[in-house]
Amino acid sequence: MKRTIGIDMDGVLADIEDHILQSYAAETGIVLSRDEIKGKSEEELFPDREMVMKICNKAGFFRNLPLMEGAVETVKKLMEDYEIYIVSAAMEFPLSLFEKREWLAEHFPFIGWRNIIFCGDKSIIDTDYLIDDHCKNLDFCKGKPLMFTAFHNVEKDHHQRVNHWNEVPDLLKRLEEEQLENLAIA
Amino acid sequence: MKRTIGIDMDGVLADIEDHILQSYAAETGIVLSRDEIKGKSEEELFPDREMVMKICNKAGFFRNLPLMEGAVETVKKLMEDYEIYIVSAAMEFPLSLFEKREWLAEHFPFIGWRNIIFCGDKSIIDTDYLIDDHCKNLDFCKGKPLMFTAFHNVEKDHHQRVNHWNEVPDLLKRLEEEQLENLAIA
Repeated sequence: MKRTIGIDMDGVLADIEDHILQSYAAETGIVLSRDEIKGKSEEELFPDREMVMKICNKAGFFRNLPLMEGAVETVKKLMEDYEIYIVSAAMEFPLSLFEKREWLAEHFPFIGWRNIIFCGDKSIIDTDYLIDDHCKNLDFCKGKPLMFTAFHNVEKDHHQRVNHWNEVPDLLKRLEEEQLENLAIA
Repeated sequence: MKRTIGIDMDGVLADIEDHILQSYAAETGIVLSRDEIKGKSEEELFPDREMVMKICNKAGFFRNLPLMEGAVETVKKLMEDYEIYIVSAAMEFPLSLFEKREWLAEHFPFIGWRNIIFCGDKSIIDTDYLIDDHCKNLDFCKGKPLMFTAFHNVEKDHHQRVNHWNEVPDLLKRLEEEQLENLAIA
């Protein structure tokens, strides 16, 4: 049986950062750059929670997110060796459910419905790896956490970091080799 | 930490059986009773898969499902001792996503978004128990499977059966006691 990888959507498959900054500027007139927001938590950056909810609940917000560079090519490649599950915490935004499903159908048509999970917290998701940008998910996952770099996690260092999708295949290969070595030693 | 229970929607929280028979009769003119369909698989009963897809994809189908008797009261009671997760294989019917979310908000408003999972296959869901009517889910679940009686599983006997929601609290109590006894013996 293939080993399993859970993959988050926002901030991992979808490049939500720029999109949310643009929407925030349009709503509030406050223009923030990617560099300015580095190292800040989402709560520090957007203390007005209602505004974030307004932005994220707007029709089309999740449907029109741009792809993260290299995501499609790498996921396709990983599917040769792994069972890939898309695991998105979509339940907070009920309107996003259909849009996220449509987004996946457009950009990742090779991922079937059996391998898509829209959830709340991810603590009951059991995959061998979880690629996610949020420590609130990675800290409690059952498999090996891989932290995809995002503005809010650049100062965190308690998980294996991934900066770009093109790093993922080699990283997984190395981790698998290390696990085999550890098994041999044990 | 509380132990966890995953609970399926269709055929477990929602009484889909009667609803689908009525919709089938309306579409095809073929009237089937609950007694007639006992012991048949979904595939035997509805060989015309396209018709099933048509019925299930109709706007309002999942939004208007009646509640399973005793479901609300028992789930509320179980939440005192367990962490409850709703785990529905909603991904096959993208249009159902929003309707299922709305249905839960109406009938189970005490279940928060963090505890709702819409998925495809349930093999990566790790809860201590899974209450479900489908062996395709129960056979591969990571926890203890509890098979909720439905027409298509009456002749299956390889999982612990539950016939009605009012049986569940006592059954869980008994299973917990058995587990403690087994631990003591070991």
